[in-house]
Amino acid sequence: MSVIVIGAGMAGLKAASTLHKYGVKDIKVLESRDRIGGRLHTVTGFDGVRKYDLGASWHHDTLCNDLFFEECEVGGKFIFDDDFFIYIDQERGRVDRDPEMGLEIIDREISKFADMEYYQKLGTPDVSFQELTLRYLYEKRQFLTDDQIRYSTQVARYLELWHGLDWKLMSAKDTYFGHQGRNAMALYYGDVVERIAKMIPGECIELNAEVQGIKREKSKTVVTTKDGRQFSADYCIVTVPQSVLELSVKDETKKETGRIEFTPKLNANIQAGFDLVHFGGMGKVIFEFDQTCWSKESSKLVTLASTSDKFAAEVRGSKSFDELRSSVNASDAAQALEGRNCWNQPLYFINLAKTVGTASFMMLMQSPLTEYIEAMGQDQEKVFEFFRPALDAIMKNMQGKPVVNGLAQVPEGVDPSKTPVLRNIIVTSWTQDKYSRGAYTACRPGDDALEMIVALEQGQSPSVRFAGEHTIVDGAGGVNGAWSSGLREAEYVAEQLNLKPAEK
Amino acid sequence: MSVIVIGAGMAGLKAASTLHKYGVKDIKVLESRDRIGGRLHTVTGFDGVRKYDLGASWHHDTLCNDLFFEECEVGGKFIFDDDFFIYIDQERGRVDRDPEMGLEIIDREISKFADMEYYQKLGTPDVSFQELTLRYLYEKRQFLTDDQIRYSTQVARYLELWHGLDWKLMSAKDTYFGHQGRNAMALYYGDVVERIAKMIPGECIELNAEVQGIKREKSKTVVTTKDGRQFSADYCIVTVPQSVLELSVKDETKKETGRIEFTPKLNANIQAGFDLVHFGGMGKVIFEFDQTCWSKESSKLVTLASTSDKFAAEVRGSKSFDELRSSVNASDAAQALEGRNCWNQPLYFINLAKTVGTASFMMLMQSPLTEYIEAMGQDQEKVFEFFRPALDAIMKNMQGKPVVNGLAQVPEGVDPSKTPVLRNIIVTSWTQDKYSRGAYTACRPGDDALEMIVALEQGQSPSVRFAGEHTIVDGAGGVNGAWSSGLREAEYVAEQLNLKPAEK
Repeated sequence: MSVIVIGAGMAGLKAASTLHKYGVKDIKVLESRDRIGGRLHTVTGFDGVRKYDLGASWHHDTLCNDLFFEECEVGGKFIFDDDFFIYIDQERGRVDRDPEMGLEIIDREISKFADMEYYQKLGTPDVSFQELTLRYLYEKRQFLTDDQIRYSTQVARYLELWHGLDWKLMSAKDTYFGHQGRNAMALYYGDVVERIAKMIPGECIELNAEVQGIKREKSKTVVTTKDGRQFSADYCIVTVPQSVLELSVKDETKKETGRIEFTPKLNANIQAGFDLVHFGGMGKVIFEFDQTCWSKESSKLVTLASTSDKFAAEVRGSKSFDELRSSVNASDAAQALEGRNCWNQPLYFINLAKTVGTASFMMLMQSPLTEYIEAMGQDQEKVFEFFRPALDAIMKNMQGKPVVNGLAQVPEGVDPSKTPVLRNIIVTSWTQDKYSRGAYTACRPGDDALEMIVALEQGQSPSVRFAGEHTIVDGAGGVNGAWSSGLREAEYVAEQLNLKPAEK
Repeated sequence: MSVIVIGAGMAGLKAASTLHKYGVKDIKVLESRDRIGGRLHTVTGFDGVRKYDLGASWHHDTLCNDLFFEECEVGGKFIFDDDFFIYIDQERGRVDRDPEMGLEIIDREISKFADMEYYQKLGTPDVSFQELTLRYLYEKRQFLTDDQIRYSTQVARYLELWHGLDWKLMSAKDTYFGHQGRNAMALYYGDVVERIAKMIPGECIELNAEVQGIKREKSKTVVTTKDGRQFSADYCIVTVPQSVLELSVKDETKKETGRIEFTPKLNANIQAGFDLVHFGGMGKVIFEFDQTCWSKESSKLVTLASTSDKFAAEVRGSKSFDELRSSVNASDAAQALEGRNCWNQPLYFINLAKTVGTASFMMLMQSPLTEYIEAMGQDQEKVFEFFRPALDAIMKNMQGKPVVNGLAQVPEGVDPSKTPVLRNIIVTSWTQDKYSRGAYTACRPGDDALEMIVALEQGQSPSVRFAGEHTIVDGAGGVNGAWSSGLREAEYVAEQLNLKPAEK
């Protein structure tokens, strides 16, 4: 019995290691990149000691996360870094837990408003999250102060940093979701990847093996790589990201890196699924400082997008919702012409000084900003100039001094224990990377990811299967989902073959 | 066409006013007390100016509360008093939003734990809320610090002040419920009662008319009062509290005040319903001070029940959950022998200085403490001595000085603008009052209130109906539920009679 697994990310490694446990001898894991892990990627900082996960960082839903439970059993390292959010506005400074505005309370009411629209009644059309929050403000304006109108929906936008999408691109119906317990930051996912990879004989994993074709031939599936090698097996488990799989259904992408030609073509359910799901663009920028010289009050800081008195006046003065929507769209268009800046959208800074004691911030950003910043690549000066106002606002509100540029060299006469000296910037490249083409599944207005999940769970055929964060409901979009889907497909194959686990 | 409404609380008044609008001429509202409003009762403070609602105080679920929407239309007064809770521990002082303990985050996880036990799987037996939180601590102890073990479940106990029950008496399955939007404090419910009562011709309402019998005779329902009067009508809507209605199904309560003898007896569904629902004992104590000389940071203060290092050690050291449960029960029993004090349970103080600018706290308490305190009645000195340590702890943590007793007279040489001088105490009497016998419906472990709600919605018969907070799902236990159920029953009668509203 033979199985080919395409992709050595969490889903592929879990599938392969499970099959190995079931006694399957002929396993081949084909990985395009020169490393395993996929969208789990731990790197080292400028000092050679600090570590960062550039891909997924957290164990989510820790009340029911089986990978997390396994990590606990084997002594894996993690930290519950849940914390109280600090919200920082460009003009006003800190606006979290403001006794007069109570923005967190309004934020919670907006979440309930969305819940009632989409889950307590039928037929509400899906719109962008921006439009939904605007409708909340319009309908409830008599119960809100001007400040609550200005700031509350900007606070609600922190959800952009869950989905990796700007609120104009994000499905209102999909925006809120239940957390099944706290989140624990993995320290680090590279170790989790290594642990699972070690359960598979080393020779099973082929790096730099980009797959270009999956073809059904008689009772076998034949897989062809870019460098012309052919592999043949009874089963094939495809774990490439949804963004890469999507290339297969478009003829015009035939020459794109990563594209797999399926013969026969991907089935009709899968093809249809692509109409109802998209891919998000979460990205990260790591700002590494010489020493910590700011407050450790909270590990979670969000700089809010700017907002104006004019906006509150528009909400108050509009005679209809359509009028309000039009004027907001016009304002947004005018702002877009002025060019991007760091106050156009919320940014989420993890204060690693509190969580793990290193003098760094891990910043999360969303599409389309991610594409813009990741395209700058390793131009640290340019990236710094873009985010400098947000960093300085954070320092100002966290008992720190303005940031000093020490990227090229630490300036003379500066005491880095008292002044935050920026030493290095690390920028992710998920949207630039042809093997990821973004971060993970996300829903745009009108999407319904369930269609695709069901189609991929059913598989292309009894012998060509799918695993990955995009193929599962519980844990969708996360590491645990990828892990569980790998387990699911391995168990499917084992069941077909009537196998029993070789060890307990 | 004639209708008798029993009870002039919100349900009865709404039913009667709606019937009047439908053109029903012969309406009689029989009220046992010498006032209308039932468990809505606005009183005046010691200075003749301050006002307090001794019964219900809030419009809950304001995203979908029809009574609230009506109040908005007619210019009714209210204030959104939602705020960030301040938690005060006897030893440790303020423990809200503590950056190290993050108790609110653990509290949220406990709520999710309950949700997963009771709503994401089947067959979890209902237990007390205390037992459920203990199980959470036991199962998740490896992820919690000692301080989190000590304090987090004490924070979660603020829910006792929603249900009016101690956590030992409270159904874990029923403890958490969804809020449909923010809460607005009514200013005051007495005015809402007056507004609705004014829609009914004054002669329809009979005060001091305690009903003792409801008898079906031919096509009429005959209602007998304690003073021997008889009223006969086509329909009868019974809005007495569930606690009073329960007297009807017990023979041994035949001489109890408020008991109604039904002929024929209450039907089997209603009788069975009483096995699966209970009544809570929310009570209030108003502490009136001379002047405000403490912080207005928040309107919501909770003093936590005391907890010890020993408890955390027990949770850590127990070899089984049964062992832990036994040792906690033993500690509780030992504590009970020492007698009650204000640190045995959480207490919820509304800081009216912030919400409405008066120098008073409105304190909420739960059964069985409510029975104990309400039995002291108007002995202000005794009530003050009981709560003094909690009041002093609040003052200490809210930038105030210890409370000075000015109940009999303001002591000489004290500046009431700098020292909090207590002038008056108002204690509710809901558990002592024979016409309420507690506060509102509540679930004990194993209860299922839905049985009773469905039985009462269906009515005793086509002509003997029920309304009140205990007869409805949406808004259950609240003023809006009572109001909606009154509307429902009036519309039922109107439909039977083919009536159309007389005005718009």
